[in-house]
Amino acid sequence: MKFSNKIIALQESPIRKLATYAKTASDKGIHVYHLNIGQPDIETPDIYLSEIKSYDESIIKYAPSKGMPALLTAIKTYYEHFDIKINEDDVIVTSGASEAILFAISVICNARDDILIPEPFYTNTVNFFNQLSVNAIPIPTDESNGYQLPDKKVIEQLITAKTKAIFITNPNNPTGTVYGMEELRLIKDLAIEHDLFVIADEVYRTITFDGVTSHSFLTFDDLKEQLIIMDSVSKRYSSCGARIGALISKNKDFIYYAMKLAQARLSVSTLSQLGATKLYQIEPSYYQEIARVYEQRRNVMIDQLSHIEGVTYAIPKGAFYLLVSLPIEDTEVFAKWLLTDFNDQGETIFITPANDFYNHSTKGKHKIRLAFVNHEDTLKRAIAILRIALEKYLKL
Amino acid sequence: MKFSNKIIALQESPIRKLATYAKTASDKGIHVYHLNIGQPDIETPDIYLSEIKSYDESIIKYAPSKGMPALLTAIKTYYEHFDIKINEDDVIVTSGASEAILFAISVICNARDDILIPEPFYTNTVNFFNQLSVNAIPIPTDESNGYQLPDKKVIEQLITAKTKAIFITNPNNPTGTVYGMEELRLIKDLAIEHDLFVIADEVYRTITFDGVTSHSFLTFDDLKEQLIIMDSVSKRYSSCGARIGALISKNKDFIYYAMKLAQARLSVSTLSQLGATKLYQIEPSYYQEIARVYEQRRNVMIDQLSHIEGVTYAIPKGAFYLLVSLPIEDTEVFAKWLLTDFNDQGETIFITPANDFYNHSTKGKHKIRLAFVNHEDTLKRAIAILRIALEKYLKL
Repeated sequence: MKFSNKIIALQESPIRKLATYAKTASDKGIHVYHLNIGQPDIETPDIYLSEIKSYDESIIKYAPSKGMPALLTAIKTYYEHFDIKINEDDVIVTSGASEAILFAISVICNARDDILIPEPFYTNTVNFFNQLSVNAIPIPTDESNGYQLPDKKVIEQLITAKTKAIFITNPNNPTGTVYGMEELRLIKDLAIEHDLFVIADEVYRTITFDGVTSHSFLTFDDLKEQLIIMDSVSKRYSSCGARIGALISKNKDFIYYAMKLAQARLSVSTLSQLGATKLYQIEPSYYQEIARVYEQRRNVMIDQLSHIEGVTYAIPKGAFYLLVSLPIEDTEVFAKWLLTDFNDQGETIFITPANDFYNHSTKGKHKIRLAFVNHEDTLKRAIAILRIALEKYLKL
Repeated sequence: MKFSNKIIALQESPIRKLATYAKTASDKGIHVYHLNIGQPDIETPDIYLSEIKSYDESIIKYAPSKGMPALLTAIKTYYEHFDIKINEDDVIVTSGASEAILFAISVICNARDDILIPEPFYTNTVNFFNQLSVNAIPIPTDESNGYQLPDKKVIEQLITAKTKAIFITNPNNPTGTVYGMEELRLIKDLAIEHDLFVIADEVYRTITFDGVTSHSFLTFDDLKEQLIIMDSVSKRYSSCGARIGALISKNKDFIYYAMKLAQARLSVSTLSQLGATKLYQIEPSYYQEIARVYEQRRNVMIDQLSHIEGVTYAIPKGAFYLLVSLPIEDTEVFAKWLLTDFNDQGETIFITPANDFYNHSTKGKHKIRLAFVNHEDTLKRAIAILRIALEKYLKL
């Protein structure tokens, strides 16, 4: 009995093993602060549930494969707040941004094609590439300049006949980098000159700090035939469990092919779509305020981190993650130790080792990713625990 | 700008084009009876919506990638009604049976592997194979004996070094065939002798007629390491829009690898899982009664069809589809004509041409699939329209 080579080769996240240790710690009565996942503690807007609760039809029917018309219109309306014009025709509703990524890669790539992606990257994104036998080619970035993109020449050297697309998550997970207009133009120019797609995961777009704006690639008119956008309600409206995303493109052939995949899987949850329609209709003031909440949390976190010796990081300008370099050789061992061998007054923390955010290098081995999705007091205490744990660990 | 070869090659369902014609007919004021899709008119059990409406947490969080523990237990409990023992460990909750099929094929097949499947088959199933560059090898079946499986030798001849699995939909869509114990044993023996997986889509299992039972492959203890089951709430509980399915296997390696895919896409809709938990807990008397409703509808349909000359079919023993041979060369042309050039007293019907249910043969070109998911009076009138239309069409 043999299994698929590509599935066997898929890297398993260390989080899974660590989750077992976290459970054991909890079972022993130790309180575990979760800094490891992007599950915000912010309340989902009431309108999501109240819309679902007002459903009064007697059958939960299939929705259209493309998405419910009202939701497609709501997505269009959401973009109008940013002076971006899309049509309902340009959108396919997906089961989270995850399905949107799978559809995009599936439609544009053959097996053994390449996609360029800034490294460090969100592990699941590259997992989707690998599920479809597509190679992730890392664009190297560095903590020292806030993980900004390298010079055009550096990226250009990575482009070959096998390169199909450049994948950009903006604002970035795991670095919190917001790529500026200069960088977006650089990517756009490369795509146009080398006939590549730009696949842009913009699910964190409204979460930015310090007055920075995260511009959508949709603002470039001359890129529209080569652009594929992923959006989602998960982070912007704290609705991770709704599993509603969107695939957006003005390339009609792309949408035509992606619809073949959408039709095969029939539809996305009907009630989730009803609720999501109301989410996309929420006024911008809502997510502008949410961004201020995350900004405060980021401030608390970097303030706390500044008191820890030997720790470095680039200050995130968006999303809700922070990549931290620790004076430690292997953060996977440290993350495990935190859960199995350490506690401070009956409390410990669950952190994400960053090794998996890098492809074939060990550049992430001394880094961790922290999510600031919890209340400020919680974050203060959690980072205090990190400081205490680090002191103890370094003396071992 | 080039797209994926396999996605370009994916056959587009004629339904999509026909749907446009159906809309045009509706817009002209013609009433269209939908015999083309498996969307039942039976009410979703109240408990689904009432459970969701009682949700009182303030955040719609990610559910576990494997599925919510209560739902896993409910699925286990559902199987206990049939004296089948599974554990929560054996189950992964999926976004409909569709995602379960994708996971199964993805985990066990490399590109260019073969899967045997009785022909005619459900088009979307083979679409999933093709999305993953896996070949469907048709096992020929025939209307004359109710589309039962051929002799062991016939199937054995199709098995090569590239064959990874036999895919069985039981009861069958589109034929309504319920494979008996003899046939299940035949498949089981072939799988064991040739080291193949059996992938069994059993979503229609509780919908059977004339006292026939549709046994699950899970009843075979000696097959358990080679068996992968798909289930879903869509048809049994008339909850197509919930998008809740399940992937079930006692092969621990298979579940381990499938979990890599489940984790990458994070989770399935949280509220849908809450509602589905209550559905799986419903007592068997519920779906036993539903089966009687479909049996009555089938009876009405075959009674009406028996008055049409030149029409043949095998009487379905389960599911809610009927494959009908018409005295017509190309049913795709006929299906279009029904929507664009015909009406009887302002009414017409939308039927599914069966050509796509066959791989590389024209055996389905004179066949159509009819779904009996509507009220008996509706079906009577719809089949009367088919008779009138056929008479007129044959005189053209």
